[in-house]
Amino acid sequence: MNYRKVGKWGLKISELSLGSWITFGNQLDIAGAKEIVREAFKSGINFFDTAEAYANGMAEAMLGDILKEFKRSDIVVSTKIFWGGNGPNDRGLSRKHLLEGIWASLKRLQLDYVDIVYCHRPDPEVPIEETVMAMDYIVRNGLALYWGTSEWSAEELEEAHKVCEKLNCIHPVVEQPQYNMLVRERVEKEYLPIYEKYGMGLTTWSPLASGVLTGKYNNGIPENSRLAKFPNLRKHLEEKGMLGEKVFEKLRKLQKIADQLDAKLSQLALAWCLLNPNVSSVILGVTSIEQLHENLKAIEIKEKLSQDVIDEIKEILEDE
Amino acid sequence: MNYRKVGKWGLKISELSLGSWITFGNQLDIAGAKEIVREAFKSGINFFDTAEAYANGMAEAMLGDILKEFKRSDIVVSTKIFWGGNGPNDRGLSRKHLLEGIWASLKRLQLDYVDIVYCHRPDPEVPIEETVMAMDYIVRNGLALYWGTSEWSAEELEEAHKVCEKLNCIHPVVEQPQYNMLVRERVEKEYLPIYEKYGMGLTTWSPLASGVLTGKYNNGIPENSRLAKFPNLRKHLEEKGMLGEKVFEKLRKLQKIADQLDAKLSQLALAWCLLNPNVSSVILGVTSIEQLHENLKAIEIKEKLSQDVIDEIKEILEDE
Amino acid sequence: MNYRKVGKWGLKISELSLGSWITFGNQLDIAGAKEIVREAFKSGINFFDTAEAYANGMAEAMLGDILKEFKRSDIVVSTKIFWGGNGPNDRGLSRKHLLEGIWASLKRLQLDYVDIVYCHRPDPEVPIEETVMAMDYIVRNGLALYWGTSEWSAEELEEAHKVCEKLNCIHPVVEQPQYNMLVRERVEKEYLPIYEKYGMGLTTWSPLASGVLTGKYNNGIPENSRLAKFPNLRKHLEEKGMLGEKVFEKLRKLQKIADQLDAKLSQLALAWCLLNPNVSSVILGVTSIEQLHENLKAIEIKEKLSQDVIDEIKEILEDE
Amino acid sequence: MNYRKVGKWGLKISELSLGSWITFGNQLDIAGAKEIVREAFKSGINFFDTAEAYANGMAEAMLGDILKEFKRSDIVVSTKIFWGGNGPNDRGLSRKHLLEGIWASLKRLQLDYVDIVYCHRPDPEVPIEETVMAMDYIVRNGLALYWGTSEWSAEELEEAHKVCEKLNCIHPVVEQPQYNMLVRERVEKEYLPIYEKYGMGLTTWSPLASGVLTGKYNNGIPENSRLAKFPNLRKHLEEKGMLGEKVFEKLRKLQKIADQLDAKLSQLALAWCLLNPNVSSVILGVTSIEQLHENLKAIEIKEKLSQDVIDEIKEILEDE
Repeated sequence: MNYRKVGKWGLKISELSLGSWITFGNQLDIAGAKEIVREAFKSGINFFDTAEAYANGMAEAMLGDILKEFKRSDIVVSTKIFWGGNGPNDRGLSRKHLLEGIWASLKRLQLDYVDIVYCHRPDPEVPIEETVMAMDYIVRNGLALYWGTSEWSAEELEEAHKVCEKLNCIHPVVEQPQYNMLVRERVEKEYLPIYEKYGMGLTTWSPLASGVLTGKYNNGIPENSRLAKFPNLRKHLEEKGMLGEKVFEKLRKLQKIADQLDAKLSQLALAWCLLNPNVSSVILGVTSIEQLHENLKAIEIKEKLSQDVIDEIKEILEDE
Repeated sequence: MNYRKVGKWGLKISELSLGSWITFGNQLDIAGAKEIVREAFKSGINFFDTAEAYANGMAEAMLGDILKEFKRSDIVVSTKIFWGGNGPNDRGLSRKHLLEGIWASLKRLQLDYVDIVYCHRPDPEVPIEETVMAMDYIVRNGLALYWGTSEWSAEELEEAHKVCEKLNCIHPVVEQPQYNMLVRERVEKEYLPIYEKYGMGLTTWSPLASGVLTGKYNNGIPENSRLAKFPNLRKHLEEKGMLGEKVFEKLRKLQKIADQLDAKLSQLALAWCLLNPNVSSVILGVTSIEQLHENLKAIEIKEKLSQDVIDEIKEILEDE
Repeated sequence: MNYRKVGKWGLKISELSLGSWITFGNQLDIAGAKEIVREAFKSGINFFDTAEAYANGMAEAMLGDILKEFKRSDIVVSTKIFWGGNGPNDRGLSRKHLLEGIWASLKRLQLDYVDIVYCHRPDPEVPIEETVMAMDYIVRNGLALYWGTSEWSAEELEEAHKVCEKLNCIHPVVEQPQYNMLVRERVEKEYLPIYEKYGMGLTTWSPLASGVLTGKYNNGIPENSRLAKFPNLRKHLEEKGMLGEKVFEKLRKLQKIADQLDAKLSQLALAWCLLNPNVSSVILGVTSIEQLHENLKAIEIKEKLSQDVIDEIKEILEDE
Repeated sequence: MNYRKVGKWGLKISELSLGSWITFGNQLDIAGAKEIVREAFKSGINFFDTAEAYANGMAEAMLGDILKEFKRSDIVVSTKIFWGGNGPNDRGLSRKHLLEGIWASLKRLQLDYVDIVYCHRPDPEVPIEETVMAMDYIVRNGLALYWGTSEWSAEELEEAHKVCEKLNCIHPVVEQPQYNMLVRERVEKEYLPIYEKYGMGLTTWSPLASGVLTGKYNNGIPENSRLAKFPNLRKHLEEKGMLGEKVFEKLRKLQKIADQLDAKLSQLALAWCLLNPNVSSVILGVTSIEQLHENLKAIEIKEKLSQDVIDEIKEILEDE
């Protein structure tokens, strides 16, 4: 396993990491989750990502219970604050929710601090000063070692860094955007000045586009698949055109490349994310040991990708 | 119930809220207060206001005892520091009293932090730097999430914000002024630059002008009424001309409008406060469940107010 | 008893206050000290001053034990750090000694915080940045509410304030100089710009010039007197010319004025200190209840002083 | 024993001090180490240096166990963070390792704070802002009273001080370089602007060049000697040319001077380090009481060095 720095900063995380979205507390119970976390750690994964929103806090509680068996400095744990409940002050990036949120997360995680706390989304309703100062409070009080953002625009990040500079607050060091073969704009274009000016790293989610990049939806939604279980997700993907014939055609072409590499399409898709040097870690969502190992092989596949193959993939992806 | 942001800031409070001045520990014992707080919360009120001065700390002690049954993040609790006792250092906005005051308030409230701590009055005897740095200490040490002022002039607020900027201290986010149909100058004119430049919100007190806006004093002070019980308050209102015939004439005209809306005069008065978009919350002082529900109907009355009716009210109020 | 602000700042201290130098742990045992502190408090004294150096920490231990019976906010307690022991890091204004000193003082005092912590002397061996940042640490961590200096020159104070401004550190609010009829230069001249520019207050020590201003040494050192007991003090006073005939002549003239006012010379001397509006409090060192009451009468004497009498005193003092 | 200030700062350390590198947990067990620490303290040594890396934390654990019997303010304890383990985040100057490192060190040392925490090496992989802010966090949270660096270049120190200034962070006060008769460049030339501009002090290690300056390797590596036991160290010295004939020739000349002074060569070598006024303390590594006393005599030897002798030594050292 390679460990990459989070942008220009000193924290080092495994290039493949383990998320808990949708899986922990949903498809996985505590026994299943424990088995996967142990195997992930054994395989070199040191970064474990969760959020207060995942399974309404149960993902944090499960992860916390599992992580107790590891040495604290051996692991990098992150959580995200934004959706904490239904009360008027239970969501968003107000000082009240950020502080009450992280206090509650740390209790569920049974930790004194997380390594990274993310603002799970931007909150246009709250002045950026309020959010920046609350995150600064969290880091300066040792509740988190670093802070980051998730799905913020480059403009919002710019603004945050400027406020940090003005108020002498601690800067965010990492963004967590969606990034995969089908969703590339933000990571590959919009954020370019952010990497250079502020040295932010990326921990990316949905590397398989909710499973679309496994090719398993090319011929319809199989029973028991994630999209069958989460109709909202299906609807969302449909709206984004990600379940359309145009996409499936690309996937069939990519499948051929994968075949030539003796790889699964999903492995090719993960390998492709790893090629981006601005990506610090690709967060995996897995529901079994087998799937974990399958995904981990993406690292080997990445090594096999020649410039020619990379160019070919690019052409397929950009073909209108 | 609508929840409004405190000015431009992220904290959200119910547009009607529950105060404890004069009522808690005076007209209400712990059982009565508990019943009202529970009913208020059930009705959507999430903001509960008190002060170290109310009933010499007993209001805080009662509120603290009652609030224990709620989830902390579901409620917004505020207190105010200024009048803490009779010793030389027991009042005002010195660092000594502000810190000793909030420490004592939190103990009485049985809380780790309040959401808002107010400077209950300006203190011209203390340099604004001292007050600002003490409030900054309180927020940076997690004893309060936000700080505000009560009955400060726009000029004093300007000065406070400038000192905050200079010393990189946390800014006050909210003022608590008196505001009602009869006391409008400060909220409607003096503070205008403060809203715009600093995004401060308002939590307003005395929306019924100590009961004058119920019309119950139009024909003299009834036995057992609040003004009969608190002669100082009566004297104060008399001095302000609020118990004069000129006021009563206006009230009789407003009563007619209320009648047309099938509302009580007090409900019209509350509704009128809610019309002001700079008001984040109107603090109610109630002594019974019935009165609480009566007051809560102001929200519906507000919806019924056409621009014509609003103009008519304005004309009555401004008629010299 | 009048309470004066400490310079422009919000803390209020009694114009006469109780010190513990030489008395606590030397001339007074715990029972005697307790009696005096109780009586002082009853008489309106709210400010109690001590230092780590007094009786090698025993003065703090005694004061702490006595003060437990008072409400914390009713009293203002100060200590001073500089001479803590004989080890290489036990004295002076290094970060190490200031922090270790205040931690030890608070333990002996059985307090969570003092109201004021003084740098007991300037320390030219330590950069002023180091001292200022250590005092800032002490105040920002709630170990003291305010900080001050003792026997610093105006130039040293200027420098300290400039460093505070540059590093955004908390400013010192009070100086503790010697001040009495015979030692006036610093308080009346040197510090003038300091009062005006920085609003510092003064708590003054040795108002009776180690007893010289009682007149009791006019005809030699009586057995059992303080100067008989502390030969070093005697030597120090002799070197300063304070036990010379020229001084005694002035004292005899002042005695006549005191007689006309029906006052003791010591009372006149204390009253004279109180006349200076830059003095926040005059620290008394008393060894008996009687002496305490005698000293407290200085407040009445001060009221009796006409401008003519004041001018007459000045002339006597300034006569070369 | 003389105590020197750490550069311009207020902390005072004995000019000879006790290290724990290689000795504690290797050549010395707990009983042997305790005996030496006690004797060192009795001889006036107040500065004890260790590091998380020494004997994989065992040096800290031993030192902590021994130091419990001393009064905390009587001793100056330092540790260094850089090499904490083998995990991806267990080494270097990231915020994660610096904080986790110092927390773990303090636990092993059984202390609430160290006096000095050093960055054991520069870490070009981590932005200097991250390192400076983490050290600032450590000092502002009372985990260390001062911070320093070890083996940083003058350029790296310059950069660190500039970032401190920009971010209003606490400056490093001390460097710990290698310094001895054979390794002089950095201390005597490169650091000159650093002493002057920033007042940094030096605590120097390897004053005997790993034993070379005892002369015991002049005729080959004796069995049981340190170089026989640590082949890596031997190789390192050989690569640096420090076990070459050219060096041995110088040593033989220096031996003659030592003989004239009735001193051992090692004592002359230590005395020579003490001559440098920028050196705050020379850290000794000793394995027996005898060796300790032998080394301590360097202080007397230093007093005997005339300017002529010093010039003669210089000539020998600089002879190419």
